[in-house]
Amino acid sequence: MTYPLSPVFARTVPDGDTHERAVCENCGFVAYENPKIVVGSVVRHDGKLLLCRRAIEPRRGYWTVPAGFLELHETPEDGARREALEEANARLAIESLLAVYSVPRLSQVQLIYRAVLHEPGFSAGEESLEVGLFGWDDIPWDDLAFPTVHWMLGHERQVQEGSIAAPFANPEGRSADLRPR
Amino acid sequence: MTYPLSPVFARTVPDGDTHERAVCENCGFVAYENPKIVVGSVVRHDGKLLLCRRAIEPRRGYWTVPAGFLELHETPEDGARREALEEANARLAIESLLAVYSVPRLSQVQLIYRAVLHEPGFSAGEESLEVGLFGWDDIPWDDLAFPTVHWMLGHERQVQEGSIAAPFANPEGRSADLRPR
Repeated sequence: MTYPLSPVFARTVPDGDTHERAVCENCGFVAYENPKIVVGSVVRHDGKLLLCRRAIEPRRGYWTVPAGFLELHETPEDGARREALEEANARLAIESLLAVYSVPRLSQVQLIYRAVLHEPGFSAGEESLEVGLFGWDDIPWDDLAFPTVHWMLGHERQVQEGSIAAPFANPEGRSADLRPR
Repeated sequence: MTYPLSPVFARTVPDGDTHERAVCENCGFVAYENPKIVVGSVVRHDGKLLLCRRAIEPRRGYWTVPAGFLELHETPEDGARREALEEANARLAIESLLAVYSVPRLSQVQLIYRAVLHEPGFSAGEESLEVGLFGWDDIPWDDLAFPTVHWMLGHERQVQEGSIAAPFANPEGRSADLRPR
């Protein structure tokens, strides 16, 4: 199939808009870019938490929870289940929303759920080097992949201790731009 | 500026991926498409709620809360404040997350906050025909723009009645595909 013209994008503010967009100078098509949604789960089993060691960049070799980008036409809960299946061959029962974090530097909003294993068993998927269950004292705190992983494990602990009922957001004044210490 | 080639996109599953994407056959660029985030606010003032009558499609002429697409590098709270300023010339103080709704048909996740007017005063912005404050008995229930507007007003009422502490999600089994009756 051939077309009379090819797309030629230029940055401009479309009529009635407030932001500069990539607009095709031939056809007027506006290529909107917006933040992406990451969905993930803090998964409990036998009193421990499930963590995956990343086989891919960024932060290859560091530990995280099963999480990834929400796909078109997917609910956040379905996305969180899919990611756990892909990264940890784990089938989850989602319980509730634990936290909403935002990482404006990366144009990312993370929706993190509490979950348990719906069926026993898990193993490393293609994007994981290994997957394991960790008690609180065994969590590799110094080798967590991202600040939000640190936050969500701490927030999960607070929920388990019964100290809060509502979901968490970014800690006061924090934009999640830094790696955890 | 000229380029030796133009982008030619074909639908294919990239290596290591699980979903079909638009991939440029000349340069390998993957044009990921993901769901978008809508941020909005249920705004209280003098015991009433602020609603905007839409000046744009879809659902022109129907009532909604100030809400719109989150922009790159914006936090959800900043986006909710920006939308209220654009659509209702209202300056908000955001209080807390009220609800997370998903509309998979539209590949949309909505983050809805509770807010109050930080400064008195509001008026119709470019995308609104009019803006008003409504007591519960005066809300135009039959002329609300979207199902989620119906939900969030009901959820706001439940919060005001003190019956819940956590944020709401879609009502059981509902995908927000239908307009409110």
